[in-house]
Amino acid sequence: MDENNLSKVKAMTFDVFGTVVDWRSSVAREIKKMGLKKGFTLDWDKFADEWRSGYQPSMNKVRTGELPWTKIDNLHRLILDEMLLRHQITNLTEEEAEYLNRAWHRLDPWPDSVEGLTLLKKDYVISTLSNGNVALLVNMAKYGGLPWDTVLSAEIARHYKPDAEAYLSTGEYLGFPIDQVMMVAAHKNDLKAAKSNGMMTAYVPRPNEHGTNTIVDYEKEDYIDIVVDDLIDLSKKMTSIK
Amino acid sequence: MDENNLSKVKAMTFDVFGTVVDWRSSVAREIKKMGLKKGFTLDWDKFADEWRSGYQPSMNKVRTGELPWTKIDNLHRLILDEMLLRHQITNLTEEEAEYLNRAWHRLDPWPDSVEGLTLLKKDYVISTLSNGNVALLVNMAKYGGLPWDTVLSAEIARHYKPDAEAYLSTGEYLGFPIDQVMMVAAHKNDLKAAKSNGMMTAYVPRPNEHGTNTIVDYEKEDYIDIVVDDLIDLSKKMTSIK
Repeated sequence: MDENNLSKVKAMTFDVFGTVVDWRSSVAREIKKMGLKKGFTLDWDKFADEWRSGYQPSMNKVRTGELPWTKIDNLHRLILDEMLLRHQITNLTEEEAEYLNRAWHRLDPWPDSVEGLTLLKKDYVISTLSNGNVALLVNMAKYGGLPWDTVLSAEIARHYKPDAEAYLSTGEYLGFPIDQVMMVAAHKNDLKAAKSNGMMTAYVPRPNEHGTNTIVDYEKEDYIDIVVDDLIDLSKKMTSIK
Repeated sequence: MDENNLSKVKAMTFDVFGTVVDWRSSVAREIKKMGLKKGFTLDWDKFADEWRSGYQPSMNKVRTGELPWTKIDNLHRLILDEMLLRHQITNLTEEEAEYLNRAWHRLDPWPDSVEGLTLLKKDYVISTLSNGNVALLVNMAKYGGLPWDTVLSAEIARHYKPDAEAYLSTGEYLGFPIDQVMMVAAHKNDLKAAKSNGMMTAYVPRPNEHGTNTIVDYEKEDYIDIVVDDLIDLSKKMTSIK
């Protein structure tokens, strides 16, 4: 790692789904709760995976212009409505469907996230940089106690990651040259795009994001400035560099 | 007051300069510190007033299209540079002028602000809605310990208050119908514009915003839903309505 460049970092922007919160087990829990209430049963984890797998294709429709700007809450709902039909779940009221859709506002932080962010907040401006919309991220922060300095989102940039605008706007909004802002993510494609737009990058592999059978990629790529175990480790390693 | 409508409020957006922070004595302190360092003297309070008085005219240049979108940090700097010339202060380095310009990032909260916001945060989404840019508001929050859920700004709406877009975008970003969002401000023109765009409104007169000789307007107008003494009082009154 290039310690000289890392010591210049002033702000950190975090991918959220998978990097800061455990979407899979949280969404599985929420669909299970609804299933128990409404009398349906299915593979809860698989339902969460299926919902999530609709996410990239639906964002790509926005990124390519096939859909006009549509926020994640509404993309999640489109995917959910199709899934409910596919799984022949037809007895949810509109209120229940909307409550279920907002499962994505009620995601548990990974065990290290709140402590790690609290430590990092002392030395850095910390912000989300998520494809989640602002309300989703704000509600999730209140739910899980995530101590963001502010919430930046694709919704504000009006461009989903990995579009350049999403990354570049972070420097403008946070008031730092882009090479003093570090993107923190569990996904290499996010970091690759961040680096190509001039950001510093921290890779946080999350071995349980897709359940316990995932094969995790720990390899450091040339577009990654630092690899850490979790957000507490990120704080420790950044402190040691100062 | 219409308690029925007040009980529907889910989120609060706050004007910041004057409403949450005491810009006048803070900016006076900062210019005095610079004066003592660089060997100039002037009426510190008057200098703060003069700087502030350039604010509305410069924003209006953006609002009317005479200037392209320009963030407050840059407008403050334009005003400051002219003032330094006028007061024949010619010995500041670029670094010192920029540090002085960022006096607006280091404004003290009013004595009730942190406690009031902390109380309100338990029951409401709380956000800035300021003409200050995002970096300014984030740095100010870190400086003063203001516990925002997120930072919304004219910079994000790309429209300065009192343009409608600044108010209307709060409902969209925070995820609530606009009549469930309450604008909290010490300035009636802000509340009048908020109400005309469908928001709820809370008026917090700040008798010392312009120093101790100000004549304060305590009158409740028809576009004001509630008048409060300070942010702790706002929390108490809203709790009593629930």
